[in-house]
Amino acid sequence: MSATASNTSRMMTSPGDMFTLENPVFCCYLFWSTVLVVKMLLMSLLTAVQRFRYKIFPNQEDLFFKNLEVQFDDPHVERVRRAHRNDMENILPYFIMSLIYISTNPNADVACILFRVASVARIIHTLVYAVYPVPQPSRILAFATMLLITFYMAAVVALRTLSFI
Amino acid sequence: MSATASNTSRMMTSPGDMFTLENPVFCCYLFWSTVLVVKMLLMSLLTAVQRFRYKIFPNQEDLFFKNLEVQFDDPHVERVRRAHRNDMENILPYFIMSLIYISTNPNADVACILFRVASVARIIHTLVYAVYPVPQPSRILAFATMLLITFYMAAVVALRTLSFI
Amino acid sequence: MSATASNTSRMMTSPGDMFTLENPVFCCYLFWSTVLVVKMLLMSLLTAVQRFRYKIFPNQEDLFFKNLEVQFDDPHVERVRRAHRNDMENILPYFIMSLIYISTNPNADVACILFRVASVARIIHTLVYAVYPVPQPSRILAFATMLLITFYMAAVVALRTLSFI
Repeated sequence: MSATASNTSRMMTSPGDMFTLENPVFCCYLFWSTVLVVKMLLMSLLTAVQRFRYKIFPNQEDLFFKNLEVQFDDPHVERVRRAHRNDMENILPYFIMSLIYISTNPNADVACILFRVASVARIIHTLVYAVYPVPQPSRILAFATMLLITFYMAAVVALRTLSFI
Repeated sequence: MSATASNTSRMMTSPGDMFTLENPVFCCYLFWSTVLVVKMLLMSLLTAVQRFRYKIFPNQEDLFFKNLEVQFDDPHVERVRRAHRNDMENILPYFIMSLIYISTNPNADVACILFRVASVARIIHTLVYAVYPVPQPSRILAFATMLLITFYMAAVVALRTLSFI
Repeated sequence: MSATASNTSRMMTSPGDMFTLENPVFCCYLFWSTVLVVKMLLMSLLTAVQRFRYKIFPNQEDLFFKNLEVQFDDPHVERVRRAHRNDMENILPYFIMSLIYISTNPNADVACILFRVASVARIIHTLVYAVYPVPQPSRILAFATMLLITFYMAAVVALRTLSFI
């Protein structure tokens, strides 16, 4: 796969066709970004599961059971919500950063490995944060992996476009 | 409109020109994404309206009236903030998912209907959550509509790019 | 820089090559969006700094020091978190809005100035909110600057694509 990818990448001479299915780097971005979008949306459903399991609802109109009051500070629900917020803080900027990184026509092998590692790291982050909490530094390492990859892509793009400051 | 859209779509043979104003699917994405961006930004202003109406401010430097303390738990302000957070959790991943879905050259009629339905559903979500709360399941249905559409697009993109895992 | 940018822009006749490094407007977007991505990610690290400085941790597994309890309402940590959330509410929609605004082939000078002003305004917003709080209306002005620029881009894109409603 990687060999094919970098061969195809070398064949492309026009700088205008980065965001097409003919670019294997873009296809790899498509697949792994889709995985991360689905992972993020599943956090909403995981929050809903916790809310029904512990009967914790934040709005008057959500009180599906008798004798309930709105409640906001349940640790099981809030843990999932913190993990979800952390996703938004990190994955959403990564989506934009990795998308525009593709426009710099990076080495296909490097780019695809970055996409795969960053995505798998965030899946691990969710598992050790929201699904089955484990001792640190597991979550810090998973968090740092995507963060450092995003910083690397930022450095590549910024150096390439520095004259447009 | 739909007939024109799918005709134009069929005429495009090059896979490299998806993200241009000549692609009616991209134009439809542009229009409805713009509507959703404006809707999201209006949530900030709606929060500000609630803060001034109920004189609830979270920072020392925001206390524009005498004898006020910072306050965080007003139900009117928090309801708008929950709706706003729900927008970020769902609409921001949708922006990326629907944008990259366009690169798979979907049927123009299907794609445009998905964009329209998802966007209108989220406008309804805001109305029944933050503007005028109504009993469930109105909000759940509006929420599920965009969620299912995003999952559908994710399935299309993932199946198309599965070999780049 | 500006003169070169608009010359290059005028030379481009094909509408399909907006999202390439040959388009100076896209390059300017790349640079300033990268700056904003890095700025947003630094908010996570600033939150971490505040958490360690004041020993405020939200999860049981994060209690790196003896005799600590999880805690959620420290004003120093919460101020940075509010600034970070405000970034997500405003910068993430701006990323999408300004990206799709490029597809309308805007005047290069206007577009580049909008990118620069919006980005610098948000850096100021962070400084006066999370780093060194100063009296209003400094934060409101910084906030309003990117908001109005995003609304302007939304108006341009919506008017161009209104027939695809």
